[in-house]
Amino acid sequence: MDRVEDIYGDGIGYVHLLDKMGDEFTPAEDARTSTNKGRLGPEKDAALQERLTKDAHTSPFEGVVVKVEIMTPLFVLRELDRHRTVTKVSDEEEMELVTPEEAGRKWFARNEMSGRYVQMPNAYYHPLVVRAQSKTNKQGGGQEVVDPAIQAEFLQAGLEMTQQARALYDWAVEQGIEKGLARIYNTQNQYTKIRLTGSLKNFLDLLYLRLPGVVLWECRRVAEALEQILQAHFPSPVEQWRRNVYDGVRLSRTEKQALSRLLEVCSYDRLDVDEATIQQVLAKLKG
Amino acid sequence: MDRVEDIYGDGIGYVHLLDKMGDEFTPAEDARTSTNKGRLGPEKDAALQERLTKDAHTSPFEGVVVKVEIMTPLFVLRELDRHRTVTKVSDEEEMELVTPEEAGRKWFARNEMSGRYVQMPNAYYHPLVVRAQSKTNKQGGGQEVVDPAIQAEFLQAGLEMTQQARALYDWAVEQGIEKGLARIYNTQNQYTKIRLTGSLKNFLDLLYLRLPGVVLWECRRVAEALEQILQAHFPSPVEQWRRNVYDGVRLSRTEKQALSRLLEVCSYDRLDVDEATIQQVLAKLKG
Amino acid sequence: MDRVEDIYGDGIGYVHLLDKMGDEFTPAEDARTSTNKGRLGPEKDAALQERLTKDAHTSPFEGVVVKVEIMTPLFVLRELDRHRTVTKVSDEEEMELVTPEEAGRKWFARNEMSGRYVQMPNAYYHPLVVRAQSKTNKQGGGQEVVDPAIQAEFLQAGLEMTQQARALYDWAVEQGIEKGLARIYNTQNQYTKIRLTGSLKNFLDLLYLRLPGVVLWECRRVAEALEQILQAHFPSPVEQWRRNVYDGVRLSRTEKQALSRLLEVCSYDRLDVDEATIQQVLAKLKG
Amino acid sequence: MDRVEDIYGDGIGYVHLLDKMGDEFTPAEDARTSTNKGRLGPEKDAALQERLTKDAHTSPFEGVVVKVEIMTPLFVLRELDRHRTVTKVSDEEEMELVTPEEAGRKWFARNEMSGRYVQMPNAYYHPLVVRAQSKTNKQGGGQEVVDPAIQAEFLQAGLEMTQQARALYDWAVEQGIEKGLARIYNTQNQYTKIRLTGSLKNFLDLLYLRLPGVVLWECRRVAEALEQILQAHFPSPVEQWRRNVYDGVRLSRTEKQALSRLLEVCSYDRLDVDEATIQQVLAKLKG
Repeated sequence: MDRVEDIYGDGIGYVHLLDKMGDEFTPAEDARTSTNKGRLGPEKDAALQERLTKDAHTSPFEGVVVKVEIMTPLFVLRELDRHRTVTKVSDEEEMELVTPEEAGRKWFARNEMSGRYVQMPNAYYHPLVVRAQSKTNKQGGGQEVVDPAIQAEFLQAGLEMTQQARALYDWAVEQGIEKGLARIYNTQNQYTKIRLTGSLKNFLDLLYLRLPGVVLWECRRVAEALEQILQAHFPSPVEQWRRNVYDGVRLSRTEKQALSRLLEVCSYDRLDVDEATIQQVLAKLKG
Repeated sequence: MDRVEDIYGDGIGYVHLLDKMGDEFTPAEDARTSTNKGRLGPEKDAALQERLTKDAHTSPFEGVVVKVEIMTPLFVLRELDRHRTVTKVSDEEEMELVTPEEAGRKWFARNEMSGRYVQMPNAYYHPLVVRAQSKTNKQGGGQEVVDPAIQAEFLQAGLEMTQQARALYDWAVEQGIEKGLARIYNTQNQYTKIRLTGSLKNFLDLLYLRLPGVVLWECRRVAEALEQILQAHFPSPVEQWRRNVYDGVRLSRTEKQALSRLLEVCSYDRLDVDEATIQQVLAKLKG
Repeated sequence: MDRVEDIYGDGIGYVHLLDKMGDEFTPAEDARTSTNKGRLGPEKDAALQERLTKDAHTSPFEGVVVKVEIMTPLFVLRELDRHRTVTKVSDEEEMELVTPEEAGRKWFARNEMSGRYVQMPNAYYHPLVVRAQSKTNKQGGGQEVVDPAIQAEFLQAGLEMTQQARALYDWAVEQGIEKGLARIYNTQNQYTKIRLTGSLKNFLDLLYLRLPGVVLWECRRVAEALEQILQAHFPSPVEQWRRNVYDGVRLSRTEKQALSRLLEVCSYDRLDVDEATIQQVLAKLKG
Repeated sequence: MDRVEDIYGDGIGYVHLLDKMGDEFTPAEDARTSTNKGRLGPEKDAALQERLTKDAHTSPFEGVVVKVEIMTPLFVLRELDRHRTVTKVSDEEEMELVTPEEAGRKWFARNEMSGRYVQMPNAYYHPLVVRAQSKTNKQGGGQEVVDPAIQAEFLQAGLEMTQQARALYDWAVEQGIEKGLARIYNTQNQYTKIRLTGSLKNFLDLLYLRLPGVVLWECRRVAEALEQILQAHFPSPVEQWRRNVYDGVRLSRTEKQALSRLLEVCSYDRLDVDEATIQQVLAKLKG
């Protein structure tokens, strides 16, 4: 699983693994620098790595490096770099935050295709399905689609807009207008291609922010393809990250205390629950 | 609260605030760049910042900057830079990990006092109390002290060692030995002084790793002094970080599921617990 | 000089200083942490800082922090983040490189305005003058403008394209299309607003890449406004950086050797040249 | 050349390559992401990479990653992390600066051996030759050695000091003193072992600061071993970096102008010099 092709169904977008350094148990080997022991077999290596993941001891996951190439539209690349979230702060205030979190900034290296100097690639993104704005979720991410007539009208207008923008660009370049200016009326659905190099930790941090359902679908598709590739090459740490971090939950002090109190006073049939795990949670809540 | 003096009881170690940029509601102002609204008063600003903290949307906390000066022994500075933890991986394997987590690496700027070229400061750390190795906690951090006779012997030998090392260094410099070599037999309890500049986010990340009880006491004292200073100047975000992050807990997928199941089947008297919070937790566990 | 307004002549673009930490002699104070001496007056502080600048000892310039707000079109923001350069490698190969150099990546913090959730700002950039593609400089940056008729046609078409794109976006939002999709046909001349926090060193690194004449004019205007602001608040280090780094030149080993040889064998009238500086250069070339 | 052994002549210190990602022409391949052309053969790839190096377009050199293991004493590790330089600012002021430049801070990952929890390695550094403090160079780095009698006395005292410190540590651990405290009287010549992961660019930046003759010999030995390893695996870019950056020189604006003027007025026999290079320099000085 080195290549995830056609991530948008238009035959253009993709995520490819280009190179990697290290394997799924390299973090354990690096961590054992401190004790000089190296690898101790998959079972013990996995046990150590699970402990590191649980304790947010992330440094050993920075010694594994991954390089990928991503073909995606410009507006998606901007979402990958940034973190965009809508938050209901209170009844009066709703916020959309747009910030490039560290996960998006600390790529080790990045190079991007350019269409200004060489022949600009004639590749633009048009959605196969036009999603409706979710009513409950301000960030979109919904499953509903708009009325077929509206969808058709939007896509038709978008296609024409794209073609006109392209024609204007081609004409402007031909007329000798500076290429950096000629392109400013291009549409934001234009494809671009980047190479990214980062550590396993960097990539998992990125997935944490870009995999959730509230993320723009086109951006999430990149994250999902990245996870497939990471999963294929580093199954043990990726699955542990899923179990202990991504699919987990963080409770605040107040929630911790309320839950701790409840566990003391509630009654239940031990056969109905995973009692061992409950005891483990109780220890955590008290600790 | 700009100066926390005498953090070790020997009249030497300290943490001083030198400068800062921004105040406790700057993160809200920066976050609202996306909506162009600026500040909306302490209550709304605090509400927004709590939301950002809960969602791990940390970028706005990077726009607040703090510069401090720290006087601490060399072996403590090494602990501040690195993350050292002892972990019982399994019955067979116990690990001590020593890695400089990002929290220690990404200081914006750092300058350190040097005693090689100028007159080396005659300042060394000797513990007031000699702690015993904890039996349950391999990292030390225990409360027990060793037998008074052993304590006296250790401190006496340590003091002599330090003085001899110092005398050897002074003699070697006088004899014209290269200063970079003359000092290699110095002891690791020698004091040094650094200036650090970092964002509020950087400092909170550092506190996350250095405040816990398992951390070496001399290192924890620096973290505690830093928290006092941050608390005095940025009370709202520091307290929110405490409530929602530091004093909270992270549950894994398995723990989440076990707990979710238990909450469905258990019975309890609603008056005995903080029911509103429990409902909020339940929503989180399901979400 | 906290606000440089109207950087493009369209009344919209600007660069504003929002906050700062430290002044023009803070780097000297921080550097002297090592000797415990603090500030020694403007003359000595400037002398030390010049030495640091010449030796590329940049760490003390990271203890001064600057926060700015920039209003600029989307395509300019992308240029600020990336480094785009055209290079004639050989007669056969010409390269355009597009990479986000560290200078663009290591901002301490960044927040951006968003027009997806709130009312999208109706602000678009149209050039006052349409520059012609330079024949000698593939990156553009030329002084020539295109024929008035072509300029008029381009701007007219661009204005219409922008208005159509805006109308399509407004209509799409009204029809309930997900806002993240509705905007993909927008043109790249759309304005956006960001806040950046970084160290003096970060900003000077950015100026190094963005001030040169080959940089896209709209991007260079941001760099020029930044330099004006930095110059006003940190005149000494900014001028020293200009003299010793930006306005200087780097010679390769071969060039160094050829020049060194020439200086040995050539003859000239000492009154015709700055002999003291020549001797200083000769020492450097030999060293 | 994956292992440079015995870098100090005591049979202990070393630098080993553990892993790498990419080869000597990967930077060209990554750079051509922008034009979609990939590799074009060693000659063209080298030509492009030389251009990138000359233009300080460093991003493509971040896509090559190297992991090494270093065995070195504690006082050397501290020098590797920091940048320590003595500068004569004026007749009155001489400065020693001690700062961790970015080159030392931005390691992708680092793990260190620990001797606190496991059996502490009984390995300490004693210099084979005791260098004298240079009179002209305050940072040491001189070639002269001290008088044999002084050398013998220093090494004898150092050896005893080290053994006493070790004995005190062993005794303290045995008596149940917390290991974190037991070790504080250890000497700074104690060996430690680290693993570092970084990009080719990171490592070259480090060499720039740590290879020069003024650097402490023990620290320079690590840099020299690193260069040997990098040279063996990435010969083309490392040699280009040497020629164009490390072995080159930077001239200030004033120096540029004085030299430019001199080249206009001086007379020389063209056969005596490398005229082609001189013309190239002249173009640079004017440009």
